Amino acid sequence: MKYIGIDLGGSHIACGVVDEDGEILAKAETSTLVGRPFENIVYDMGRCALTAVEKSGVHMDEISTVGIGIPGIANNATGDVIFCTNLFWTDEPLRRELQKQINKPVWIENDATVAGFAENAIGISKGCKSSVFITLGTGVGAGIIIDGKPWIGFHGVASEIGHITMVIDGEPCTCGKDGCLERYCSATALIRMGKEMCMAHPNCDIMQRIDGNLELLNAKIIIDSAKDGDSHSLMLFNRYTKYLALACNTIISFLDPEMIVLGGGVSHAGDFLLKSITEKLPHYLMFKTMPYAKIKLATLGNEAGIIGSALLARDMLTK
Amino acid sequence: MKYIGIDLGGSHIACGVVDEDGEILAKAETSTLVGRPFENIVYDMGRCALTAVEKSGVHMDEISTVGIGIPGIANNATGDVIFCTNLFWTDEPLRRELQKQINKPVWIENDATVAGFAENAIGISKGCKSSVFITLGTGVGAGIIIDGKPWIGFHGVASEIGHITMVIDGEPCTCGKDGCLERYCSATALIRMGKEMCMAHPNCDIMQRIDGNLELLNAKIIIDSAKDGDSHSLMLFNRYTKYLALACNTIISFLDPEMIVLGGGVSHAGDFLLKSITEKLPHYLMFKTMPYAKIKLATLGNEAGIIGSALLARDMLTK
Repeated sequence: MKYIGIDLGGSHIACGVVDEDGEILAKAETSTLVGRPFENIVYDMGRCALTAVEKSGVHMDEISTVGIGIPGIANNATGDVIFCTNLFWTDEPLRRELQKQINKPVWIENDATVAGFAENAIGISKGCKSSVFITLGTGVGAGIIIDGKPWIGFHGVASEIGHITMVIDGEPCTCGKDGCLERYCSATALIRMGKEMCMAHPNCDIMQRIDGNLELLNAKIIIDSAKDGDSHSLMLFNRYTKYLALACNTIISFLDPEMIVLGGGVSHAGDFLLKSITEKLPHYLMFKTMPYAKIKLATLGNEAGIIGSALLARDMLTK
Repeated sequence: MKYIGIDLGGSHIACGVVDEDGEILAKAETSTLVGRPFENIVYDMGRCALTAVEKSGVHMDEISTVGIGIPGIANNATGDVIFCTNLFWTDEPLRRELQKQINKPVWIENDATVAGFAENAIGISKGCKSSVFITLGTGVGAGIIIDGKPWIGFHGVASEIGHITMVIDGEPCTCGKDGCLERYCSATALIRMGKEMCMAHPNCDIMQRIDGNLELLNAKIIIDSAKDGDSHSLMLFNRYTKYLALACNTIISFLDPEMIVLGGGVSHAGDFLLKSITEKLPHYLMFKTMPYAKIKLATLGNEAGIIGSALLARDMLTK
């Protein structure tokens, strides 16, 4: 059998047809165009998925299930999305609406959980009994895998490590609290720190790279400057990876998984990022002499959403 | 069948014979007398367990397994204790040594994990699919239960939430790091905060309760003063329970268990403690409208170690 995977994002909808091994046979993509009526967005999700099926040459009878990764939380008992903050959705009947176009069993799961599941199924953490995947993007999301299965918690709200408090009464967070981990570990946080540095040091290397226009600043520019050895940027990057090392210790001290997988935009910094975190991490561990989780970079990139949602729906609905 | 449970502590060894329902049929206790040779302490553990068996009237043939809760970490593949900091044990063959006296299968587990397992088996979290037990004592330990089983992590070092960083570069911790959660959430932390307050306010209510002798200060005196409505003590207690609310949010945001169980010395403050935490907690949660873990007080008290180690050994060795 084959499986549809839909990665619903704030800007794009990506769909794919996936085989038993997690290989994507064909893909299609369209814009989300947030702000439109719920039904219109779901209609486009369905159309995009059917386009992928058509491109794959797979007959609809061969499609077993549909998986959807959402930037939010769902209830698979009802098939409803509880909420997707970025899409302004609350209590929307996603499964029912999508089944108007594609009448197959549907499983809906948080996008970071889905990506973590993909890495654990066929990516870098393949075969790990337990792993924690974290995305370092606009925010910080996570997917926890325990005994090979996603752990979404008793109320379905687990793995929100982006909203563990990292600095008591610290930076205000979009969630309404202060000092959340994602205010210090996301790409957004790195950019904020970069802007603060540029304002304090108007002649710094980064300021030259952006011609003094702070609007042009992104994570890659900061990381490139640090990679090139600029002392201000290195100091900034080390401050950022200190927070990431603390986040890794939180995961290790709490759950002690076999592997921690770093994904999302900042993870494209590659071994430079990994080295900076792993050389700081031992200082923050309680047990200096015990083995602890391997820290690795995600390998599936943007395809993790399609692959993970497709394979998770298969496992949840057919096994 | 019946099961021996041994609770090995830094000051006392408590042993019991437990039936299928987790009822303690008979108990015995002796001093640990830390600092003696390993063999002598284990000899006393065995003698104490045999005394409990004798008192219970149960024949040794009816004893199926022996469980031991230790203030440290063990490897059940080898039967060795990896380390017990308070007992100065490193790589000690506890199972082999104990079996010289009691030739039964032995399971060794961290004491907080064992206590959490006991609460989940027959205590306040009985029947919960997932729970996190935290002890608020000299330090802060935890026991994670997932799908009814203890989660000890891939390398056996999970649930050390006492050593998640709560305040970056904060109070020095006994583990060698700074700012660990247990420096803010343990009974020891409450006493430290109390001493600081007494030095700043030499005429405060607590100072009067201890006749100006800071050596007499303990958690109960601080809590009693706060219960009696003293404004300084209330402010201090609220500062302490703010840290506990943050710790509860860390557990909820990460693992989203069905229940969080509070045990250890400070939990004897009862509903006064519970109310102070639960009224602060919603402020620190990301999802204000979603249901989240119930926060409850442990019910098994000091017997959790005997019951939990006995029942866990049964489950691990006979099921």
